[in-house]
Amino acid sequence: MVLCYHNNTFGPVEECRLPVTDLIIQRGVGVFESIRTYDKHTFAMGPHLDRLAESARLSGIAADKILSQLPDIINEGLRHPDAPEGDMLIKPFVTGGLINNRGHFPAPDFFVIFEEMHPIAPETIKNGITLQPSYLERPFPLIKTTSYLTGLIPMRDAPSNVYETLYCCGGEITESLRSSFYLCIDGKLITAPVGKVLRGVTREIILTLASENGFQIEERCPHMDELPNAQEAFISGSAKEVLSVVKVGTQKIGLGRPGPVAKHIHKLFLSNISRWLDK
Amino acid sequence: MVLCYHNNTFGPVEECRLPVTDLIIQRGVGVFESIRTYDKHTFAMGPHLDRLAESARLSGIAADKILSQLPDIINEGLRHPDAPEGDMLIKPFVTGGLINNRGHFPAPDFFVIFEEMHPIAPETIKNGITLQPSYLERPFPLIKTTSYLTGLIPMRDAPSNVYETLYCCGGEITESLRSSFYLCIDGKLITAPVGKVLRGVTREIILTLASENGFQIEERCPHMDELPNAQEAFISGSAKEVLSVVKVGTQKIGLGRPGPVAKHIHKLFLSNISRWLDK
Repeated sequence: MVLCYHNNTFGPVEECRLPVTDLIIQRGVGVFESIRTYDKHTFAMGPHLDRLAESARLSGIAADKILSQLPDIINEGLRHPDAPEGDMLIKPFVTGGLINNRGHFPAPDFFVIFEEMHPIAPETIKNGITLQPSYLERPFPLIKTTSYLTGLIPMRDAPSNVYETLYCCGGEITESLRSSFYLCIDGKLITAPVGKVLRGVTREIILTLASENGFQIEERCPHMDELPNAQEAFISGSAKEVLSVVKVGTQKIGLGRPGPVAKHIHKLFLSNISRWLDK
Repeated sequence: MVLCYHNNTFGPVEECRLPVTDLIIQRGVGVFESIRTYDKHTFAMGPHLDRLAESARLSGIAADKILSQLPDIINEGLRHPDAPEGDMLIKPFVTGGLINNRGHFPAPDFFVIFEEMHPIAPETIKNGITLQPSYLERPFPLIKTTSYLTGLIPMRDAPSNVYETLYCCGGEITESLRSSFYLCIDGKLITAPVGKVLRGVTREIILTLASENGFQIEERCPHMDELPNAQEAFISGSAKEVLSVVKVGTQKIGLGRPGPVAKHIHKLFLSNISRWLDK
């Protein structure tokens, strides 16, 4: 079952409810994280909780007390008899709560979802994915807010094979709906700098590993005009790890199939998981 | 008490809860309206529900069935023994529900809040208000979404006398956090066109009344550079009706006190309420 922690209690997620007066419902004031596990160990929980703290701070949510409790709650949930058996996605949400004092939210609520991790389908990994360009922007790139409309609305009219939205306001590629984006040109990895995009936890690990392994990295926004010259593109994220992008809109990337760089980076990632695994 | 309708039942708002899996919580997918009453009659309910339908449609929420029930529910709530006694704000919310099919939300939920209407403080009306300019934009201006972070975050560092945020991305003034905005220059009313801003229900009434009464109207975005030349500015909304703006950031408007145009428009509004009152 999907387990949820709320109000000092673990229970089935279906029974976990928030008052309609919470500002996460009334005003979209809410931040969250997705932390995955490998073999009952959380992966990079520290950086995820640091980012949650930053998201809360930038949103005006006074979350210090909540944040200090989260590691214990997550570790308890991980070992809870009703938690999913295999690998999990653990999602702590911090809400605006009931009080809005001029954009300050002094009384937040929180809950943590423990759900089964659904692995990416083998065909998706084998064939690579298509992204749908959107000329909208994500407001507050450093905040992992629950407000996803800017990325969800462009999905509606996208062809059915599209995996997710790619933000490229003014032609400048930043990130995709739930992932960091990388373009590979002439052996270089090009990816948008933090601030233009969310501080991706998997992104930072990939940049560390790539740089340790001799890749040249350019932290700048790739431009849509560069897509025809790229050999490869890929996205990264906690659940998907590394996934090849073979098309952006109608523009084929490289040969239109997953290439060696993304595969190599994914292999590096998989063989270094233990470095970021919490034990 | 604050009354709430949800799941076929009226009850105290404190008891009304949504599952944390609803996409209004998970992904910020939710739209709403604020309809006010005068003497137990709703004001312009039709245009409000039309706009709610448009907000839902543009957000991908399949709300037709919900929308068809709302007039009866609102009228029942209005006369409910537990409803507030005086004038009310009635707020129907439509949520994304539990299913996200590529930006389509086929199974929405909804609730309706009936709360006491708090009139604007007499000093606020007498002295006028200050707005805080923000160079952010509201994504999807035609959708009255619950995502308010773009307007709430700039409030945090604003001086304590600031009433709300004024959106003026690139110097182009669109609307304020919860209101339509008007600039008065040389007898003309200048206000942003629908599409750049939400279709304000009070805005459309004011433009009708102003035009019937010989005001010249320009539907274009006023520019920040025009503020020093303006004689007056005001905002409008369902709850506040018409409210003079005497300062934007540090820029005084006109003489820095409420002027005759806003007062005249407000008077016109008050004396024509019966035309839009639902009987």
